[in-house]
Amino acid sequence: MTDPGFDFYFDPISPFSYLATTQIDEIARRHQRIVRWHPVLVGVTITKIMGLKPIPETPLKSDYSWMDAERQAAMLDVPLRRHGLKNINSLAVCRAFLWLRDREPDIARQFVRRASAALWVDGRDITPLEFAVSEAASVGVDADGLELALRGPQIKELLAREVDAAIARGVFGVPFFFVDGQALWGCDRLWMLEFKLAHGRWPTKRDWEKVSDLSA
Amino acid sequence: MTDPGFDFYFDPISPFSYLATTQIDEIARRHQRIVRWHPVLVGVTITKIMGLKPIPETPLKSDYSWMDAERQAAMLDVPLRRHGLKNINSLAVCRAFLWLRDREPDIARQFVRRASAALWVDGRDITPLEFAVSEAASVGVDADGLELALRGPQIKELLAREVDAAIARGVFGVPFFFVDGQALWGCDRLWMLEFKLAHGRWPTKRDWEKVSDLSA
Repeated sequence: MTDPGFDFYFDPISPFSYLATTQIDEIARRHQRIVRWHPVLVGVTITKIMGLKPIPETPLKSDYSWMDAERQAAMLDVPLRRHGLKNINSLAVCRAFLWLRDREPDIARQFVRRASAALWVDGRDITPLEFAVSEAASVGVDADGLELALRGPQIKELLAREVDAAIARGVFGVPFFFVDGQALWGCDRLWMLEFKLAHGRWPTKRDWEKVSDLSA
Repeated sequence: MTDPGFDFYFDPISPFSYLATTQIDEIARRHQRIVRWHPVLVGVTITKIMGLKPIPETPLKSDYSWMDAERQAAMLDVPLRRHGLKNINSLAVCRAFLWLRDREPDIARQFVRRASAALWVDGRDITPLEFAVSEAASVGVDADGLELALRGPQIKELLAREVDAAIARGVFGVPFFFVDGQALWGCDRLWMLEFKLAHGRWPTKRDWEKVSDLSA
């Protein structure tokens, strides 16, 4: 094992990213690996770098994607509710994560899990800076220090650099993973990620045939 | 079980569709189900209906998709080679499939499997009408009858209607499946399809955790 850790790219704006935040730390724990969380802005990547439309504005795929998100939530046994919010973004949450990551990494992850669930379970608007500050305060963070940072230029520059680095590495959707140097995209690939962590290789057809045989 | 069959939408232009053609009849056989093959033109759907670019022209996603196709081919233990062909389409192959399906359904599927592998293993151009005719002849089909049909207007109209029907049903990529009334997209979902056929329900996290535990 060359790298004891693996990388997890999230964006709270995505329901699939939210679903992954409910699972990824437990998966890492089960396999004694460290998971490094990285924020990305998937809307920026899809529209500005890839030249596509956001999924919710894409005919056919938008309906399928939501149905599939609900199916995956049921498979993972976690709540998921469709919100009717428009023009939301995850800038403040992603910036607050970076500020927290350098100070209290466990709380930083907890904060993103809570912010993702606030949007995808409670239907709250995560866009305002005030959301990030009050949510961070509720998990014991220095709210004044965070607010000062969120209003300054440094944290904006830091997130922009993180997003550029992710794009340079090929990250174009969420959740996205790098495990043992290999890229893996999608909440529906968590089972492959888990298999790779357990066995050091990708599963084969024979492996997944066992799932059908063994489950009653 | 309300429907003894399930639906499989293919387009030989896609490496993921090719991979699925190597598996789907065997999966149906293992679970005593009938699989109904349907041709679609995924390039038309992506560009004209969804307003997106083809995957090979989409930054970031194009590289990932090919790497992922190779990974899935390895997982399924089937050959896959990248071709350098440009401006290819699957019109003649899809039309020939429809003509064959009404006459010899088993040969129709065999023909699509062979045509898909011709492109994705042998790197042959499947675009010309002559390709479909000679490939069909090699599996014992009346080549003159097929060529006459491919040059006429009826088969073109028939394929157009099939594609419209698929889009109306929400099919936007390949391989695409409907099983027990539910939509499923992607070669990477074959394990979910197989589980659904075996158990009448989607797998849960507990089911896929068994794969990691049981494979050595």
